[in-house]
Amino acid sequence: MAYELYYWDGIQGRGEFVRLALEDAGVPYVDIARGAKKDGQGTSAMLKIINSKIEPHIPFAPPFLKDGELIVSHVANILQYLGPKLGLAPKDDGLRYVAHGLQLTITDMVAEVHDTHHPIATSLYYEDQKDAAKARSKDFIENRVPKFIGYFERVLKQNPHGDTQIIGDAITYVDLSIFQVVEGLHYAFPRAMKKFSKQYPRVAALHDAVIERPAIAAYVDSDRRLPFNESGIFRHYPELDQDA
Amino acid sequence: MAYELYYWDGIQGRGEFVRLALEDAGVPYVDIARGAKKDGQGTSAMLKIINSKIEPHIPFAPPFLKDGELIVSHVANILQYLGPKLGLAPKDDGLRYVAHGLQLTITDMVAEVHDTHHPIATSLYYEDQKDAAKARSKDFIENRVPKFIGYFERVLKQNPHGDTQIIGDAITYVDLSIFQVVEGLHYAFPRAMKKFSKQYPRVAALHDAVIERPAIAAYVDSDRRLPFNESGIFRHYPELDQDA
Repeated sequence: MAYELYYWDGIQGRGEFVRLALEDAGVPYVDIARGAKKDGQGTSAMLKIINSKIEPHIPFAPPFLKDGELIVSHVANILQYLGPKLGLAPKDDGLRYVAHGLQLTITDMVAEVHDTHHPIATSLYYEDQKDAAKARSKDFIENRVPKFIGYFERVLKQNPHGDTQIIGDAITYVDLSIFQVVEGLHYAFPRAMKKFSKQYPRVAALHDAVIERPAIAAYVDSDRRLPFNESGIFRHYPELDQDA
Repeated sequence: MAYELYYWDGIQGRGEFVRLALEDAGVPYVDIARGAKKDGQGTSAMLKIINSKIEPHIPFAPPFLKDGELIVSHVANILQYLGPKLGLAPKDDGLRYVAHGLQLTITDMVAEVHDTHHPIATSLYYEDQKDAAKARSKDFIENRVPKFIGYFERVLKQNPHGDTQIIGDAITYVDLSIFQVVEGLHYAFPRAMKKFSKQYPRVAALHDAVIERPAIAAYVDSDRRLPFNESGIFRHYPELDQDA
């Protein structure tokens, strides 16, 4: 049975990190919320699981993955579950924990990206928290991007197997996620990203290598890849951007 | 060799979720940053790993665990690594992913607790972001606590093995973490928590059951358990608290 991915329709969002791994591996999956109601799919099929009053393993929020009866929630958890099956995880058990630790650092960074435009409350409109968003974005660009991306640059540099992948001797799901973060930052903060490839040459090179992988290149060109927009995690509000 | 836990001295913070599991299981561990410099411990020993220019698996931030040569970072990752070894994880492989998903929801909630007092920037003082902190705390108490804790209440209710543990038929590290979250909320937001045991009876009962576990009771009474304070994640600022 094909994997079932459950995530909001209309945005890349957090679901995209899972899609990139599935697409890179070329395995079949069903993007449930984007399917038709007549096929038992669509957003209502996703909400039915989240709101179930009998399912023991209800997820807190999308994305989640169904593999048969098993429901796995949270991006990093889904990726550690899929990684070995997709040939996108280190072979060594210990290294798998290290890969997962890297992915959880990406999770933290993505949450901070979200909070650049929603620093006060997810329940409020961006327009109602714009001043706080400007202050938080300034700190994000000046302090947090260097801290997170500088960290990934160091991990690449210190990889004994070479700086063309973040862990071990082959591309893993973590590299695909770093690609997505860099894509998103370019979309949301083009001014801040102008000198990115000089500041973080290894991370930039990794991004460029991932987009040249045939399955990723084909996916990014397909209509399965939705464009970034102002409903997702990475949003382009020019007033939040500044030179880095 | 004893497990080595690396986390900031002086606060419970995120390290406490790991300590509770180690203490409950009664296994030896060394709390490195709280040790003496003359024994090769202390905060400097922790920073030496984080700032290493040769270590391939540098963590982004504390807490991290060293088990021999392996470095495992991020609370939820450490707990999924330790869980089976400590007898605090489900036996079934699939359920372990579900447990980890629950733990990652706790991770998200803890990050939101942190942001109630630091909504704009970790690099700024609380006093310099107090207005935003008030707005964020209001939303946290009114919307986020009910969403997160209401979710855990539902998961307990829907556990086919009974509502005295969050997953499967025995206490796991996830239950210990829920205990810690409830403890922290009581400390930080006593007004908001006044009706807690009526609003969320199963979560409240789980908290009370965990603190009666002999090893946890002994730990909480020991001087290894630092008190909550205003340098940690859960901080008591009366001006951020309100009735729920």
